[in-house]
Amino acid sequence: MKQKIIIVGGVAGGASAAARLRRNSEENQIIMFERGPHVSFSNCALPYHLSGIIKNPQSLVLMNPELFMKQYNIEARVNQEVLAIHRENKTVTVKNLEKDAIYEETYDKLVLAPGAAPLVPNIPGIEKVNVFSIRNVVDIDRLNSFIKESSSKKVAVIGGGYIGVEAAENLREAGYEVTLIEAAEQILRPFDYDMVQIFHKELYDHGIDLIVGDKVEQFDTNQVMLASGKVVEAHTVVMAIGITPETKLAKEADLNLGETKAIQVNKNYQTNDENIYAVGDAVEVYHALTHTPTKLSLAGPAQKAARAAADHIHGRATENKGYIGSSAIKVFDYNGASTGLNEALIKALSLKINYGIVRVILMDKVGLMPDAAPLHFKLLYEIPTGKVLGAQAIGKGDAAKRIDVIATAIKFGATVEDLKDLELCYAPPFSTAKDVVNYGGYVGTNLLAGAFQQINVDKVRELVENQAMIVDVREKYEYEAGHIKGAISIPLSEFRERIEEIPKDKPVYLHCRTGQRSYNAVMALQNIGYRNVYNITGSFLGLCFYEFYNDKAWDREPIVTAYNFN
Amino acid sequence: MKQKIIIVGGVAGGASAAARLRRNSEENQIIMFERGPHVSFSNCALPYHLSGIIKNPQSLVLMNPELFMKQYNIEARVNQEVLAIHRENKTVTVKNLEKDAIYEETYDKLVLAPGAAPLVPNIPGIEKVNVFSIRNVVDIDRLNSFIKESSSKKVAVIGGGYIGVEAAENLREAGYEVTLIEAAEQILRPFDYDMVQIFHKELYDHGIDLIVGDKVEQFDTNQVMLASGKVVEAHTVVMAIGITPETKLAKEADLNLGETKAIQVNKNYQTNDENIYAVGDAVEVYHALTHTPTKLSLAGPAQKAARAAADHIHGRATENKGYIGSSAIKVFDYNGASTGLNEALIKALSLKINYGIVRVILMDKVGLMPDAAPLHFKLLYEIPTGKVLGAQAIGKGDAAKRIDVIATAIKFGATVEDLKDLELCYAPPFSTAKDVVNYGGYVGTNLLAGAFQQINVDKVRELVENQAMIVDVREKYEYEAGHIKGAISIPLSEFRERIEEIPKDKPVYLHCRTGQRSYNAVMALQNIGYRNVYNITGSFLGLCFYEFYNDKAWDREPIVTAYNFN
Repeated sequence: MKQKIIIVGGVAGGASAAARLRRNSEENQIIMFERGPHVSFSNCALPYHLSGIIKNPQSLVLMNPELFMKQYNIEARVNQEVLAIHRENKTVTVKNLEKDAIYEETYDKLVLAPGAAPLVPNIPGIEKVNVFSIRNVVDIDRLNSFIKESSSKKVAVIGGGYIGVEAAENLREAGYEVTLIEAAEQILRPFDYDMVQIFHKELYDHGIDLIVGDKVEQFDTNQVMLASGKVVEAHTVVMAIGITPETKLAKEADLNLGETKAIQVNKNYQTNDENIYAVGDAVEVYHALTHTPTKLSLAGPAQKAARAAADHIHGRATENKGYIGSSAIKVFDYNGASTGLNEALIKALSLKINYGIVRVILMDKVGLMPDAAPLHFKLLYEIPTGKVLGAQAIGKGDAAKRIDVIATAIKFGATVEDLKDLELCYAPPFSTAKDVVNYGGYVGTNLLAGAFQQINVDKVRELVENQAMIVDVREKYEYEAGHIKGAISIPLSEFRERIEEIPKDKPVYLHCRTGQRSYNAVMALQNIGYRNVYNITGSFLGLCFYEFYNDKAWDREPIVTAYNFN
Repeated sequence: MKQKIIIVGGVAGGASAAARLRRNSEENQIIMFERGPHVSFSNCALPYHLSGIIKNPQSLVLMNPELFMKQYNIEARVNQEVLAIHRENKTVTVKNLEKDAIYEETYDKLVLAPGAAPLVPNIPGIEKVNVFSIRNVVDIDRLNSFIKESSSKKVAVIGGGYIGVEAAENLREAGYEVTLIEAAEQILRPFDYDMVQIFHKELYDHGIDLIVGDKVEQFDTNQVMLASGKVVEAHTVVMAIGITPETKLAKEADLNLGETKAIQVNKNYQTNDENIYAVGDAVEVYHALTHTPTKLSLAGPAQKAARAAADHIHGRATENKGYIGSSAIKVFDYNGASTGLNEALIKALSLKINYGIVRVILMDKVGLMPDAAPLHFKLLYEIPTGKVLGAQAIGKGDAAKRIDVIATAIKFGATVEDLKDLELCYAPPFSTAKDVVNYGGYVGTNLLAGAFQQINVDKVRELVENQAMIVDVREKYEYEAGHIKGAISIPLSEFRERIEEIPKDKPVYLHCRTGQRSYNAVMALQNIGYRNVYNITGSFLGLCFYEFYNDKAWDREPIVTAYNFN
């Protein structure tokens, strides 16, 4: 039976739903409404226009209404806003924004994919600055044209989420003087505080004035005033503090919102009206690890949900196992990726999960290869089951690969034990014979079995202040190039002959460059009866990254004699 | 109780076992015998010395005996060959090759990690050429020094496995005139014939004279004579036709060999003597997908087995789920990776597995990013369970990442359905919102459900010869730049208005550039009642790669009007 299907929103979720609906049926009528002038553009790629990596903003538009019609027989009506849904008679009221005309359209099924809108709070003086937000091609084109013609090169980006950081990076690459302001203590929440310091340093190293833990209080002409009293000069302000689901249409049609204030859907992405589906940034989905409803502003899940909804309209149910949330970002020369739970999320949601962490630094490929670089890897697992809960990786090399593997493992309920045995592809240009993921499994299994104890790099400052016994097992020349203040040097190569220098009656904290040599030293001590020894996970390299930016930002006395990032 | 543990072999398996044994016990005596002058070198990285990517051959040696002793209290005896094992009194006979002295050493536990030796068959005239093989640092240094000082730049590499191809590539990068000779119809067996053509072309494009399907019959001075009558000029010959497990010691000590002629071990890597373990290239392991014993010459599994053996010596059992075999290779600008079963292996072992294939070509990152490139992806799944059996990926981008994900999924018994829902990390510089792995899941699920039919790119020549009805749904300008001879052009944008040009009463084969647009056309036809339509998987881009090298090699009439690799 021929159906008329109306889709509200023509980007990730909407366009995906339309294409799948057409493949499911040749006869159905499919109409896709988009308020803006473009359908099916690459919203994730928008910031890359600012640096010129993507030169022509029009190339961000992947499909136009003519092509939708010719190739897929899908009617894409741009510059048309759906104003209201009338569920009782299954119609929508549409406004043609170009012609300023209002009309009705009937539907058999309705798919809502309205997305989420950038938050632009009403901060005092906001009318005095040139404020932009980044949601679509029109936005990015306007921002880019404005700054190019602006007499000032000073830009403030407010908000250190993915869009904010990518905007800051691309603006900096284009030569602007960029200040990035984030109210929380850190940018990029998918990364824990100890990991994200690598990105803080990277922004700092590339000349971005990063301000964390400070809030915008008001604006004045070309000025952003912060709670700390700091004043940031900026001719252009990019507002990227977050997004809010577009729920007005749904709410006015008495469709249920969930506890996150996004549209509530069942496993088939149906709202409380069985003829109305909703997908994408406007809906709340089930988080398979927190077991709570959540909002995920991610293109992949939006497209997958759209496909599932389209299939359900055609009588095909899809399994819905919930989401774990995987994401990635490039920040200048560093790549980062994250999946599942992190410590901050567990704390923020007050989840009653007993978890342990693994933190490993390993070369991302065979160390002899010219572009080999350390990869910083953090894994969370459940105690005592060993179930993998989440992971984060940051490095100059392939961080996303490792997190993709963890994301896959989590979907199957993997434990740290399972990670040991994964057979990942190895060749010198790509990885090491045992990948950092395998190491994560080894270390996690050891920790779970109580084979050794560790403390994380974020506790070292406290150790130093309390004059704890820290033993540096790197070789002499490494120690001399920079070490933790107060640390004793006992190189692994002299370790066994000097073992009596290490007291048995107080806690001893060992480290090397990345934690591998010190782990061997820790095991040696334990095997001869030491009980109070800890490996400093993250080790000297991790510590330098952890401390560097904060030392600069807060004008703090370093706890190392010299940083060393090699 | 203090034990004395002897390890035979000091590279991947041996060195890993030694290090783990030391971490397990501080008191045990550990002696590692190595016949050559070096322990713990990076054998997988050896070929990269030939191009100068790794300049100093000594840097390939990662640890020396002094460091082993000082850092780990492990006695590494180089240039010492274990000649015999005396199981009854638990001793080994050792020859000090430098001093030409023979002595005995007792053991409590023995770990065999002798590796595998390059095969150098006794081909007639072999004494007339300068033959080299590549097993260790001495070999690669000698080869490199010889060719550098040679008056001729002509090198023949015999054998198109990983080592052969990597040697050929690195020699070519160094400016030599390289002929690569492979007796089988293809190089690199972890890749199926349809996929590997991309690598054949890449070698050809980089000026390597690749000869497949031809065998070395004899040598003459500076000449390699092939079965076809072809004569290859070569001053230097690199023999890389394969390796054979070093089993002499084991055999003479009456340790059991398995059906593959490698050393047989139980799940804990114990031989039929419970005090003797064996790991690495010399042993046979259980293949979790073929359910047969197999030899895996891979560094990762060797190191993991070594760790498991070391733990078992200390009373800790490890799970042994068998192996699936994952590997990767770089061939000039292309990267490839493979895991699990491929079609060739299923055929070679006459496995009674009913399998289907998915072949998808997708951009490896958002198409707008400057270095985005197509990724060729092939997936094998079991019919009717949908269980994932194996996968191969080749492209200029991150092939290993996608295969790592599949390798992980296989370990958990994933089905194609599961691949759809994997949440992989997405950002424009790294991937697309739906990754090629997800697409593989979608296509596999559709095929399994009988939603559409396909034929692979390797059947197209036959279709052309039989004047089958091939419809090219690319746009006109794409068709004009090169198309399959005899194919009818009906662009997707004109498809619905010209649908009556497509007959209902005979098979119709549709394609576009990568198979996505033609899939939409196939679905449209099916939805209006066509029953005999096929999507050509691999499509025009895959076809060009598939045909190119063979057309050149066999001087064959192309079935396309012009190749197009864009």
